[in-house]
Amino acid sequence: MKNILIIGAGRSASACITYCLTKAEKYGWFITVADADPKLAERKVKNHPHGRAAWLDVMKPNDRKDLIGRHDIVISLLPAHLHLMVAQDCIKLKKHLVTASYVSREMYRLGDEARDASLIFMGEMGLDPGIDHMSAMKLLNDIRSKGGKIKSFKSYAGGLIAPESDDNPWHYKFTWNPRNVVLAGQGTAQFLENGKYKYTPYSRLFRDFHTVDIPGMGKYEAYPNRDSLLYRDVYGLNNIPTLLRGTLRHDGFCKAWHALVKIGLTNGNYPIHDADKITYHEWMNAYLPEGPGSVKERMAKFLSEEIDSPVMEKLEWLGLFRKKKINLPSATPALILEKLLLDKWTLKPDDKDMIIMQHEIEYEGKAGKMHRVVSSMVMKGNDSDDTAMSRLVGLPLGIFVRLIIDGKITTTGVNIPVMPEVYLPVLEELEEYGVVFKEFETEL
Amino acid sequence: MKNILIIGAGRSASACITYCLTKAEKYGWFITVADADPKLAERKVKNHPHGRAAWLDVMKPNDRKDLIGRHDIVISLLPAHLHLMVAQDCIKLKKHLVTASYVSREMYRLGDEARDASLIFMGEMGLDPGIDHMSAMKLLNDIRSKGGKIKSFKSYAGGLIAPESDDNPWHYKFTWNPRNVVLAGQGTAQFLENGKYKYTPYSRLFRDFHTVDIPGMGKYEAYPNRDSLLYRDVYGLNNIPTLLRGTLRHDGFCKAWHALVKIGLTNGNYPIHDADKITYHEWMNAYLPEGPGSVKERMAKFLSEEIDSPVMEKLEWLGLFRKKKINLPSATPALILEKLLLDKWTLKPDDKDMIIMQHEIEYEGKAGKMHRVVSSMVMKGNDSDDTAMSRLVGLPLGIFVRLIIDGKITTTGVNIPVMPEVYLPVLEELEEYGVVFKEFETEL
Repeated sequence: MKNILIIGAGRSASACITYCLTKAEKYGWFITVADADPKLAERKVKNHPHGRAAWLDVMKPNDRKDLIGRHDIVISLLPAHLHLMVAQDCIKLKKHLVTASYVSREMYRLGDEARDASLIFMGEMGLDPGIDHMSAMKLLNDIRSKGGKIKSFKSYAGGLIAPESDDNPWHYKFTWNPRNVVLAGQGTAQFLENGKYKYTPYSRLFRDFHTVDIPGMGKYEAYPNRDSLLYRDVYGLNNIPTLLRGTLRHDGFCKAWHALVKIGLTNGNYPIHDADKITYHEWMNAYLPEGPGSVKERMAKFLSEEIDSPVMEKLEWLGLFRKKKINLPSATPALILEKLLLDKWTLKPDDKDMIIMQHEIEYEGKAGKMHRVVSSMVMKGNDSDDTAMSRLVGLPLGIFVRLIIDGKITTTGVNIPVMPEVYLPVLEELEEYGVVFKEFETEL
Repeated sequence: MKNILIIGAGRSASACITYCLTKAEKYGWFITVADADPKLAERKVKNHPHGRAAWLDVMKPNDRKDLIGRHDIVISLLPAHLHLMVAQDCIKLKKHLVTASYVSREMYRLGDEARDASLIFMGEMGLDPGIDHMSAMKLLNDIRSKGGKIKSFKSYAGGLIAPESDDNPWHYKFTWNPRNVVLAGQGTAQFLENGKYKYTPYSRLFRDFHTVDIPGMGKYEAYPNRDSLLYRDVYGLNNIPTLLRGTLRHDGFCKAWHALVKIGLTNGNYPIHDADKITYHEWMNAYLPEGPGSVKERMAKFLSEEIDSPVMEKLEWLGLFRKKKINLPSATPALILEKLLLDKWTLKPDDKDMIIMQHEIEYEGKAGKMHRVVSSMVMKGNDSDDTAMSRLVGLPLGIFVRLIIDGKITTTGVNIPVMPEVYLPVLEELEEYGVVFKEFETEL
């Protein structure tokens, strides 16, 4: 069992491919990197003696099955909605499957079949989801093993720009899917606070941000994710009074993003008329009543901002008031915004990204006293290729594949990495790569 | 061609059935009223010698076809999504079809087939859509025939409670589908103002209402419909600078409804946890951060309202702060709100509803001067059975059927009532029933 197929050679694949090739050399594995763009796969394989690039149009069932059939383990880095057909092939062809994506309901339905065939289907084996589950479960189980009763669990993660590469007023650049950044938070956020369910609609999600102190890093803004209750059962937190998962942003981001939401620029549900003809300036005017004053003045008034406030400065910097053509045929507001942000928020070659993850737990110890544990991990990238994001998504995938090959994994079926046989060795090896959670415990 | 089938005997069917039965006696027609509830159909037919009630489960194709096959013209008062299968039967069985619902894209696709079979498929033949199209087209075409150039078209309609039956602080009761009232306006409203497209997201639709003066009735609040541009082509208004269709509400409604939107109570996309266990008071608390002060005090603060403001009075009157159980299993906010409003906003037996429709047109006359025409119609119901809503939805359907039987309609295929051969005789006969548009013209 030494032939590994990695499907997808995009940005987030680099660290995974590098890890696998390095181990391939050491342990005699063989790695195939398949992509719709064979040049891209070739660039990532770099003529490695234990690797080869393959051209794959994943929508062609025969090609896909043929390629999968010649390997033992598949790592799918495809867009999430494409995993299912790969998974169905893996069932038929009896291959293990590892992904870094959220496990869909349809994927979970394959659980019995995978288990019956003694197959390991591991999803959510990246950063978020992935390292968040593993580090949280280790922390929670450590506390529980000492007899602690967990009363509050808050977990934050942010894909950010490192301070040394932070050169724009938003203090943000794209380190993952721009479309997901634009659409982030749409819906209603749900979480638990002091035993009560709380709901925050999208229209005030970024307005009602709170502040999180990251030891050694300072204060960050946080807004709740839509799905804070999603892992309540899996984490064994069924009766916990406070449960929140949130996203971290640099200071000042949330208020300005709220302005974009309030204007209506993150909406992906309808097209803007004449988007190929009008300017950004005219687009902004389309959200404002006609009247005296410039578009910028009327926008400031609409947002209850001073004309030179930090929020207005950020909008101005994006070019929203420029008389420059949008030049997109029939685009939604979200798509226009995404295109504008792509021009502004793309990493420069030497830019370093930064991932922060922090868990905050309050528990009642055996002696009845309340304790607080803060566990945080900060990792910076080297440049726009070797990003912290790519490492933290790709390394757990590679490490887990090594554990499968070494026969260390007994859990078959469709799972996410919440069991000690997975999270203990993966977290341990991640430390070798600098992925270290620092814990601070205080009595309350 | 004298056998008419009316499918659906619900609230909006009464006036249509009565009209058809009356004309049936005079002209020797025969009317079948079919419903899933045969008792309801019987109550509406009232043993009329020219009518009969039929039991029909519209989801049973054979029963449906059998019944349709024995008639010449079908009036479908079914929920909008069920018209299509009736329409397909009508094509096969060569029957005319009339509905008061919006014509879907799928329905329009039947146009060629209907025309080839010389069938008349008329949709949007009620009040709104229906009388709005007919009265607007008459007005617009009258101005155009005098050489006027139309510069601005605004059209408003409201299903309201008559002042003499207005006994609650919202000045509103349900006169049509409660679910549609709760979900009204979701999405982004689009309209044209001085040659510019304008977009108003739902999150500020009810905040940014404007005021409309109805001659003889006073001032009403109006918010733009989502679809102001929908009939631009059909009305022949392709280059018009200002185009808006809006909904009318009594004074004070919009600001208070905006509060419900802002809290998040009109959202139909996710379930509230434990909706079968918690009280309205606890539900409101779920939208607020924990903190000092009562739920009502914190809500007033969140909404930037005084504790005894008109908005807070309306929320209080709805019972949102009562410690009374919601008692709904797994319900969305929109469903909980709908249930609450049903208890509060249902017409009492003697309550009179009121429909207001008003078109406001600005045009440049042949002499180059600007003119303004305001055309308004107000109709009140008699009681909660004989509503203005039922009359204004049902009479156009009945009148149009008479026109078909009299051979006055030459337009075949799928259409909406924008042609003079339809709107002139329908509007003329509607006047006999008190549906009168009063026009005021001024020079600007």
